[in-house]
Amino acid sequence: MHEYRTQRRIEFADTDMAGIVHFARFFVFMETAEHEFLRAVGAPGVHFEHEGRHLGWPRVAASCQYKSPARVGDVLDVHLRVQRKGNRAMTYAVTFTIGERLVARGEVSSICCAMGSGPLEPTQLEPVAIPDFLAARIEEAPANP
Amino acid sequence: MHEYRTQRRIEFADTDMAGIVHFARFFVFMETAEHEFLRAVGAPGVHFEHEGRHLGWPRVAASCQYKSPARVGDVLDVHLRVQRKGNRAMTYAVTFTIGERLVARGEVSSICCAMGSGPLEPTQLEPVAIPDFLAARIEEAPANP
Amino acid sequence: MHEYRTQRRIEFADTDMAGIVHFARFFVFMETAEHEFLRAVGAPGVHFEHEGRHLGWPRVAASCQYKSPARVGDVLDVHLRVQRKGNRAMTYAVTFTIGERLVARGEVSSICCAMGSGPLEPTQLEPVAIPDFLAARIEEAPANP
Amino acid sequence: MHEYRTQRRIEFADTDMAGIVHFARFFVFMETAEHEFLRAVGAPGVHFEHEGRHLGWPRVAASCQYKSPARVGDVLDVHLRVQRKGNRAMTYAVTFTIGERLVARGEVSSICCAMGSGPLEPTQLEPVAIPDFLAARIEEAPANP
Repeated sequence: MHEYRTQRRIEFADTDMAGIVHFARFFVFMETAEHEFLRAVGAPGVHFEHEGRHLGWPRVAASCQYKSPARVGDVLDVHLRVQRKGNRAMTYAVTFTIGERLVARGEVSSICCAMGSGPLEPTQLEPVAIPDFLAARIEEAPANP
Repeated sequence: MHEYRTQRRIEFADTDMAGIVHFARFFVFMETAEHEFLRAVGAPGVHFEHEGRHLGWPRVAASCQYKSPARVGDVLDVHLRVQRKGNRAMTYAVTFTIGERLVARGEVSSICCAMGSGPLEPTQLEPVAIPDFLAARIEEAPANP
Repeated sequence: MHEYRTQRRIEFADTDMAGIVHFARFFVFMETAEHEFLRAVGAPGVHFEHEGRHLGWPRVAASCQYKSPARVGDVLDVHLRVQRKGNRAMTYAVTFTIGERLVARGEVSSICCAMGSGPLEPTQLEPVAIPDFLAARIEEAPANP
Repeated sequence: MHEYRTQRRIEFADTDMAGIVHFARFFVFMETAEHEFLRAVGAPGVHFEHEGRHLGWPRVAASCQYKSPARVGDVLDVHLRVQRKGNRAMTYAVTFTIGERLVARGEVSSICCAMGSGPLEPTQLEPVAIPDFLAARIEEAPANP
């Protein structure tokens, strides 16, 4: 699996005083699409236990370019593609469109990490290999569509 | 100690398309004032370890009445008062003003809980007595000022 | 129409370091359910033009009681009921459940207002009667189910 | 003026279930630092009226690299530098540190725009020259410190 498509309706709380979606919200939209993709390839959850360790996917980098505004009630088409699949890290490219109109285009890199066991422990983030049962189901998307 | 005062400048991201602060943000403002109050009376943190357990303060109820709008750049005067101090639960009343103008008035009840040890454990929230070293420094505010 | 039902999946960004949904998010969930209800009864949008004025629904009060935690990936059943329908104001009661389990129960009151014409104008909020074409389609829910 | 420094204490609501600051919050932190910088060079507000038009600064691009986690109660040192100053567009580089430790490093580009006059108008974003009274006070930062 190398891509995932979903939709998302803009909520009132997504907007700011300029009357359009606040730019930081697109990063949340990307993250949620990434998590839905991971569930779609078989991850038991966003965080999950694997071989006795707690695994999660902290972000190492994220970026977004804003092309046109989105407003409350708009339905965004969200298209996530696997840009790079590494041993431990993933990079996803995500486009947001409304019909034919490009709204934003972003990229996010996350890395599979074993995490400390609780909110009070100084959370240790130790990069680990993506578990085989997930890695086997993820592939890189073909060059740009 | 029975009250705490702070200020907070409204940020762009606090606003919504109506051009004013989004109503849900006031709950975050209340929570942050509560946490600053707890630090002021000696809590080592929002969550902290005490007699071998992890303690936190999940909310059981929260409410807010909105009296006039706040806008980007406004500086809110935040005034928190201890409304009720129980053995395990606290209720705070918070007012938000800009100069003489009342912006909002809220109330939040939180309960001291021992919490499970990690994001993957089904987090158990077990109400416990407020530790003495905190309880000794907190008192109820006098009847309405 | 006196009620509206929807569902909502908890996203990673809805959570906080306690591993559960941050309490302020439920107010966003309530607002979005209210807006979906308004669309369902025929409102052209969250804000809309009516007889030459811009109408919106600022909140005057909101409250929520938290009964049990919700976590990432959980699907909330959201049930909104019209508690009171006034000439200009509406009060909605909203319950959040996961299966049989009650997660939270809230209430929000909003008031139909004509709003100033832009982000730079000091936004004036002038209460007005709910337009007939909406009022005619909204009714109060029967006493508690 | 080519840089701006501020501090920011991490709030509970900034965190997520991994126990650290949610990555999208850093974009809000950058934006707020940018707005404080603009006020420091004399902007009357985030949005303001100039020669009969409403001006604002929509973002065209934003990115962030995450180097180490920040947690509730941490005080971030925020350092904003003017990376590029164009006729209409600005690019800022922002670093977030806790003491000597680098937490994140981001970049944001915004463009001075005349904006439509209200939330109901399809907000038109028309790029315009940065007003002289601001442009005269902003300069690019020297090559990397």
